This record gives sequence, structure tokens and C-alpha cells, in this order.
Amino acid sequence: MSQRTPLHTDIAWSTPEAIGVHGHDLCNDLLGEVNFGDMAFLEVTGRLPTPPQSRMFNAILVTLVEHGIVPSTLAARMTYAGAPEAMQAAVAAGLLGLGSVFVGSTEGSARMLAQAFAAPDDGPAAAAGADLPALAEAIVRTHRTQKKIIPGLGHPIHKPVDPRTVRLFAIAEQTGFHGRYVALMQAVAQAASAAFGKPMPINATGAIGALCCEMGLSSQVSHGLGVMARAVGLVGHVLEEARRPMAVELWHRAEDEATAHMRGRLHGQASPSREP
Amino acid sequence: MSQRTPLHTDIAWSTPEAIGVHGHDLCNDLLGEVNFGDMAFLEVTGRLPTPPQSRMFNAILVTLVEHGIVPSTLAARMTYAGAPEAMQAAVAAGLLGLGSVFVGSTEGSARMLAQAFAAPDDGPAAAAGADLPALAEAIVRTHRTQKKIIPGLGHPIHKPVDPRTVRLFAIAEQTGFHGRYVALMQAVAQAASAAFGKPMPINATGAIGALCCEMGLSSQVSHGLGVMARAVGLVGHVLEEARRPMAVELWHRAEDEATAHMRGRLHGQASPSREP
Amino acid sequence: MSQRTPLHTDIAWSTPEAIGVHGHDLCNDLLGEVNFGDMAFLEVTGRLPTPPQSRMFNAILVTLVEHGIVPSTLAARMTYAGAPEAMQAAVAAGLLGLGSVFVGSTEGSARMLAQAFAAPDDGPAAAAGADLPALAEAIVRTHRTQKKIIPGLGHPIHKPVDPRTVRLFAIAEQTGFHGRYVALMQAVAQAASAAFGKPMPINATGAIGALCCEMGLSSQVSHGLGVMARAVGLVGHVLEEARRPMAVELWHRAEDEATAHMRGRLHGQASPSREP
Amino acid sequence: MSQRTPLHTDIAWSTPEAIGVHGHDLCNDLLGEVNFGDMAFLEVTGRLPTPPQSRMFNAILVTLVEHGIVPSTLAARMTYAGAPEAMQAAVAAGLLGLGSVFVGSTEGSARMLAQAFAAPDDGPAAAAGADLPALAEAIVRTHRTQKKIIPGLGHPIHKPVDPRTVRLFAIAEQTGFHGRYVALMQAVAQAASAAFGKPMPINATGAIGALCCEMGLSSQVSHGLGVMARAVGLVGHVLEEARRPMAVELWHRAEDEATAHMRGRLHGQASPSREP
Repeated sequence: MSQRTPLHTDIAWSTPEAIGVHGHDLCNDLLGEVNFGDMAFLEVTGRLPTPPQSRMFNAILVTLVEHGIVPSTLAARMTYAGAPEAMQAAVAAGLLGLGSVFVGSTEGSARMLAQAFAAPDDGPAAAAGADLPALAEAIVRTHRTQKKIIPGLGHPIHKPVDPRTVRLFAIAEQTGFHGRYVALMQAVAQAASAAFGKPMPINATGAIGALCCEMGLSSQVSHGLGVMARAVGLVGHVLEEARRPMAVELWHRAEDEATAHMRGRLHGQASPSREP
Repeated sequence: MSQRTPLHTDIAWSTPEAIGVHGHDLCNDLLGEVNFGDMAFLEVTGRLPTPPQSRMFNAILVTLVEHGIVPSTLAARMTYAGAPEAMQAAVAAGLLGLGSVFVGSTEGSARMLAQAFAAPDDGPAAAAGADLPALAEAIVRTHRTQKKIIPGLGHPIHKPVDPRTVRLFAIAEQTGFHGRYVALMQAVAQAASAAFGKPMPINATGAIGALCCEMGLSSQVSHGLGVMARAVGLVGHVLEEARRPMAVELWHRAEDEATAHMRGRLHGQASPSREP
Repeated sequence: MSQRTPLHTDIAWSTPEAIGVHGHDLCNDLLGEVNFGDMAFLEVTGRLPTPPQSRMFNAILVTLVEHGIVPSTLAARMTYAGAPEAMQAAVAAGLLGLGSVFVGSTEGSARMLAQAFAAPDDGPAAAAGADLPALAEAIVRTHRTQKKIIPGLGHPIHKPVDPRTVRLFAIAEQTGFHGRYVALMQAVAQAASAAFGKPMPINATGAIGALCCEMGLSSQVSHGLGVMARAVGLVGHVLEEARRPMAVELWHRAEDEATAHMRGRLHGQASPSREP
Repeated sequence: MSQRTPLHTDIAWSTPEAIGVHGHDLCNDLLGEVNFGDMAFLEVTGRLPTPPQSRMFNAILVTLVEHGIVPSTLAARMTYAGAPEAMQAAVAAGLLGLGSVFVGSTEGSARMLAQAFAAPDDGPAAAAGADLPALAEAIVRTHRTQKKIIPGLGHPIHKPVDPRTVRLFAIAEQTGFHGRYVALMQAVAQAASAAFGKPMPINATGAIGALCCEMGLSSQVSHGLGVMARAVGLVGHVLEEARRPMAVELWHRAEDEATAHMRGRLHGQASPSREP
């Protein structure tokens, strides 16, 4: 047997009289004192937020909760239709689609901005904000050359501006989080709009990516914020599905249409199928 | 620290030169010698099947693989649309809906039949098959009184008979698994048809529940067979979704229709939404 | 094709300039105005909380976030070890274990209390709180007769009292949610302690079940609160696993111990195995 | 509303008397005629295997079923401990860890080999097998330069050879699938062993990657084979967990050790915790 690495956690422990979470006494310091968003901040940073951090962080999470009828909420509703006794499984099914396509752009824009200031040759000078337009143009150029999408820009519906971005950046001004990452993201949007000859507004994921950088949260944490916030929204969708279902109707329509071309092939019979 | 219970598994182990699975040498005894269904039999029973067991068991698994466009395959497709980089997550999302509504009836009919012969007061006499019609009538009466659905009977499409049941029971005759559980299930179907005044054919899940009893497989195992077989089918659907997608189209249609009544409420604007 | 049922949601919609969530303007009414817990309240009830509701509800969610190293956090950590590129899958894996064993008791105690006051023959009189001790004794008696565990009572560590319950009920007094359901839960604890001859304190899940009833939240919603709160905690554990892993060490230890009895069976070789 | 794309599937359909799967009559052509592995072949390729394809394909699946106590089986067991009523969720949790770390190497080696022969500048000449050693050396050099692991080589236990590879390649000879991809994989192993100065045997995932190429299966399909085969193995582990559990013991040990350093911080009490 190889040598053992000790198992270690700093998150939580308990005694008969008390429970500790990230160094705080749950019952005396947290319950009734901090809100759910502050508790989430504690979970991802290991410390409680200051009031401005609390306001900014809660606004970010609130933005991410609800996106209406999208593939992940439909996956949750489909799962609930088959296993209504296990609501947690429906929420989990919904989370599983939060991959590279829909939620990845928050993480992507956070990483893009963090790397821009961390790049050794741009270094402290760039960090001082000396030449954001040049930095932004370099980012746009690199993405165009590599035929990559610039994360956090553009929206099919919210144009010419995404109203969430406007509001989040206003809160950032009020709370002191409107710094160089937000400025760089705005410069990137401007450079991209010029380069592509059409408005490329900062969407909500781009705004949140920049604000995560301002708050010192890693790109991995930014992905985690999307996951936890969507879990809240998915519970809402599962509860609506229980009250007013759409999964079974959608299934029947999809099956009827998608198999119409095949029916009648066997024995000349044509009728919709529902396998139990 | 409380006293330790030793950790123990009998499933698999390995040495540099060999791998053992349920007591068999993987490389010399299993690879190239047994098929995937036999391996599944080994996993759930701990022993390899006899040829008749192999034929019956493989037929059961093959029946359970594919059910076309159903909620679980749609959940998998929706998940793939959001996270195409993680095929395993799409398959997992599909499995999560295999709960009480769609797959539970295999487990339910297996349990119903096993309990009928296990009931102490019916005991060995009943087990001898003395009076199956009476036993079946008691089952139907109990379910009607408790307003419970009799698991494994009826089908919205396959009537007056489910062709899978016919074929599975024919294979059962050929392989020696057409015994008292199958006979009781048939008696239950007859009693139910008389009681409800309409054909109540044994559907595929009822047939498989009875055949699992014949093979000595528990109702929990019967649920496990559904789960593993559907995993195979879900891979097929994810691969088709990759080639010819339907998830995004279905999402757009669902969102447009489901939110039509709300658009225009804010600022008098009406247009479909797609939140990234 | 059968007649179509219209698809319908009341949760969210959007226009180019605005996004609506449960009837509220996301950007103007919610962002920066409500915290993450209030947003969760909106998701599960369709309305924003009053200040007392907000304080009570946030305290409930904060209680449910973190439970340290438990099976669900270990499942998440094991999953992260295999698929670090898909954090959402690790969180989902953790949620899947929130079933009948660990989280079900919140839902169970909420249902028990709701049914006590809803029972037709106890009816309005009982609802008026006429005889809580008698109602509590009936509940304890029924559970003992049916050999069922009374949900929400007892704790292996937190005895003679669960400090979370003390604090949650104090907040309930301050916010006006210390009503008949809390009183009945307390009476049940007293009756159970007398019946079993040992302290049976109300644990956190029992307290939260009672408080959900006080706030008019269904037992299904109470389960949903556990799911969303644990999603937050699971993100915290996945982030710690990324910084300071324990999954691989735990795997190696478990495998070595659990397979020790089998090694050497094949070819006389003994060594631990790690299959990639 | 944008123009509709028709929904379409070619997988399955049914009539009252028959069910079609990938163009075959399920009851007459498949049940009792093909084994579970052949059905899996039909799902991923759309056609039934020839006898040699059937033997090779079943051997590949059988290899992938069981890997003993590993992170994914532990995640499944942890999940079952919390939600024993939902076996499908435990299997799903186990699948979620089949990401880049443990199962990805099958897909990786399949992609590496496919690209080697598809590269335009190596083109038909290379495809003719003209100079496999040179092709192999180029692959090893590229991976070393980019500091990437060569997928499918090396094993912590099975050395100097992986017995599964030996057996799979022997079956490949018997069934006619020992072609240029297997030869290239062997050349890569040889070149890597020379370059690194130590034995770098082809492990099972490397062998399967090569054999998938020989069978004309894409790298995405090769990942799917791992997912479906592990689903079978995970059912076996969940059933063993139900008979002889290890999850709760492992949890208690992990929690006790990992939190030992924190206990006593609050109120000077020290005792292990178990939050329900």
C-alpha cells in the first residue's frame, strides 16, 4: 500500500452545540444575519462579503437564475415527467446541459480578461490601464485570426444593448467594481463593433465575466455561480411543470412529427406510437 | 472514532498479468468468449449464463434498448445541445427520467408476481400452481379496491396484443422459462380483461417482469436491466442528435409558443427571446 | 394526430429592452434590489417576499447550504476527479443523492404537519389549536404502530438540542412565523421523548419542515429548497476539491482495502490495481 | 416566428402490430436473434454486425464493463446511499465522472490514429502503410514537443504488457481487424518506449481506440461505447452496494479524518459530526 495523503477539509465541522462553516459559527453568526447570496459568497471565497461586495455579488447571482424555456429547463421538465418522485434528479438533469454552449461564455470572458492583464509582455504597464484600446484591438484581432468567437459579446434579442449589462455596470459604479476589467470589456466591445461593422454589445455573460474579475473571482468560480444560480431557477421550472405540465405534450408532438416519415413501413399500418 | 467496518467488494481485482471479474479471468475466460449480454448477466448475478439463460436474457435486454423519441431521449438531446463536449452527461440526463412513470412498471410487475407466490397464506400450495385463476382474481380485486394500476397490463398502441410479449413468451417456451410466473401474469391479464370489460394485454414491461421472476432475478435487478439497456439506446440518440439535431428547433418552438401570451407586457415590445 | 394542448409558461419572457421574471422587470425591479434568497422565494412562490418573509426564508436556505463531508459531497468530488472539465456534472452528481435518506425528512415533516391540520375529522377545531398535545400523541402513536420513523426528530450529534432549531425558532418569533405548525412540531417532540424515554429533539430538517408550513410553502417546495441550497454548497466542495483534492486518495484506500481478500487469486500475484 | 426545421428521426417507430428499430423489425428480426452487443452495434452504426464484427465488438464492450472500485463506482455507491429509491440516479452519477481523465483516452487514441491517416500531407501514401515507423515517430515527437500525454499508452499495474491488449489484438487477428491502425498504434508504442527509455505498453483504451478505427467507428462512438459499457458495470456495483454497503463507512472515515483538525475550535467540544 502506498503512503497515505491525509484527507483534509476546511469547509465545515460540528460539535454537539455548534456548527462551523468556513470559520464562522453557523447559528450565531450566519443564520438570520446573512442572506443566501452572502452564504454563496462565503462558500466560494471562504469569507463573508463586505456590503458593496454583497450587493454586487447578489446582483450577479440574481441575473443568472432565470432564462425561461431553454434546453436545460426542458431537460429538467422531461426528467420530471418520468420521475416525479425525484425532484433532485430533474434539477440535476437541467444542470448537465450547462456546458460549453450556453453558460461557458461567462467563464470564457472572465478568462479572456484575466489573461489580458496577466500576459507577461503587456505586464504592469497594461495593468495600469495605459492603453486599453490597443489591448482590446489585439484581443479582437487574435480572435478573428483564430476564427474564434469573442466571448461575452452580442445577443440575438437584446440589441443594440443588453439591459442587464447596463444595470449591472451601474451597480458596479455604485459599489466600486467598475474598474479596469469592465473598461477593457467595453473597449473590446467597441473594437469588435468597429471590426465587424455592426453593434456587438456586451451581453450579460460578458458583463458578469468582467465583474467576476473585478471581484477577484476566478473563471472557475464564475462557472460555479452560473451552476448554483440555475439550480434555483430549475427548481422554479420543475414546480411549474408539476402545476402546468408541458413535457408530455412536447414529447407527443416531437415523436409524431419526427417519425411520420417512417410509419407505414411495417405492415402498412400508420399510427403514432408511445412506448411505455 | 467509531469501530470500523471493513470495506469489501467481490466484483473485480487485478494483478500485473490478469484481471478478475466476478471470479472469472477477464482476458482468458470472457473476452471473445461471451457477449455483452452475458457480461451483463455476470454483473447482476455473479455467474455466467447457461445457453438458454443467455438467449432469454439477451432478448430481454434487446427489448429494453430502444423506445424512440420519449421524454428520456429528449432530455438527453437537450443536454447534448448545451454540453456536446460531455456525451456521458447527456446519457446520464436521459437515465434520470427512468423513474416511476415509464420504467417502473417492470419492477412493479416483477414485485407483484414474486409476492403472490411468496405470500405465507398462499404458500407452497399456490406455488404449486393449484389455482392460478383464483390468485389472479385476488390480485385484480386488490388493485381495484386500492384504486391502483395493475403493473404490466395495457398499451396505448399495441392492442389487442403487444407483439413483444408474444415473441418474448415464445422464446421463453424455447428456453424453458415459460413457468408459473408467466402463467400467473397471463391469468392476471385475463382476469383484468374480464373485470374491466376490455382487452388488457400484457405489455413488454409485464412480460419482462414475469420473465425476470422465472430467471430468479429480483425486482431491483429488473429495474437495473432497464437502466443499462436504455443507456445503450441513449448513446444511439445522442449520436443521431449530433448528426441531425432536433433539440434547438424544439426549444425555439416551445419557447415561442409558451411565452406568446406574455410578450408585449413590458414596453409594448413583442419578440421571441433567446437568453444565452 | 391528437388535439394539441397549448404550451404555456408564466415564468420568464423578454423583449429587446427588457426581461420579465414572474411578472417583475428583472433589470429595474430585481437587480441590485433583491438578494439571491429573495429571488429564490420569487421562483418558488411567484411573488417577492415581505421583509419578515425574506429574513426567515434566507435563514432557512442558509441552514441548508452546507453539511460538510457527506455522501453527496463525496459523490461530487469523485465526479470532479474524473471530469474536471465539467463542474456542472460534479454538482449534478452531488444533487442526485438528495433522496429519501438524507434530505427527505424536511419534506416528510412538512407533510406530516400539513396533514395533521388538514385531516377532515380533526378539521377546523384542530386547526384552531384546541388540543395540540392530543394531536401530537396521535401522530407519535400512528408512527409507532406503523413502525415508521417520525420525520424531523433526533440527531446523532446535536443533543440534547439541535442548535440550528433553537436559532431558527428564535428568528421565527422575531418574524412572526412561530405559529401552530411550530407548536405542533414541539408537541410532537415532547410526546416522542416521553414515548421513547429519551430526548428526541427537533432537528434542523424538522424545524424547516414546520417553518415551511408556517410560510405556506408545500412539502414539494421544501424539498426544492434543500436541492437549491445544496447546489450552492456543492460548488464550494468542488472548488475545494480542485484546490486540495481528496477523491483520488479515498479511491486508492477504498480499492486497496476492499479488494485485498481477492488479490493473489490469479497467478499468485498480489498488487493493488488501478484501471484507467 | 422563424421558419421551422422539420423534426426527424430514423431510429424507431411503431404500429399496433410491429416495432421498427433502425430499419429492422424488433420482434421478428432482433428478439432472440441478436445479442445485446449486436443491438448496441445497431444503435451506433445503424446496421447489424457481421459475425466477425459481432465478436470483435462484443469483446470491446466486455472489456469496458468493469473496472472495480474507481471514482465513478464510488460516486454511484455514495448516491445510492442517499437515494436508494432511484437506482437510475446512482448509475447516472457514476456515468458523470467518465470525462477527460479516465475514459477520455479511448477517444483520444482513436482520434490520434484517425488523424494520422487523414492528414492531407501524409495522405494516400501514408494510408498505404508505407512508413509506419516514421509516422509513429512523428506522433511521439509532436506529443513530446507539446508536452502532451500520448493517449492509450502505459499502465500503472499492467506492465510490461496489458493482458487485455494482447487478447483483444489476438481476437482482431482472428476476425480480420488487425490492420493499419493497430499496426500504427504498435509502432507508436515502440517509438514511445524508445523515446522515453522505458516500456510504454499499449493499454486497453489504446487497443480499443485502434480497434474502433479498424471497425470504422468514429472517436465519438468510441466514447459512447465506454459510457454504455460502464452503465452495465455500474448496475453491478449498485446491486453490490445494496447487499454489502461501503458508502456510509467510507463517508464516516473520510469525514472524521478530514475534519479532525477543526473540531474543538467551537466551544472546546470535540466529536465527529453527521449532519442529516
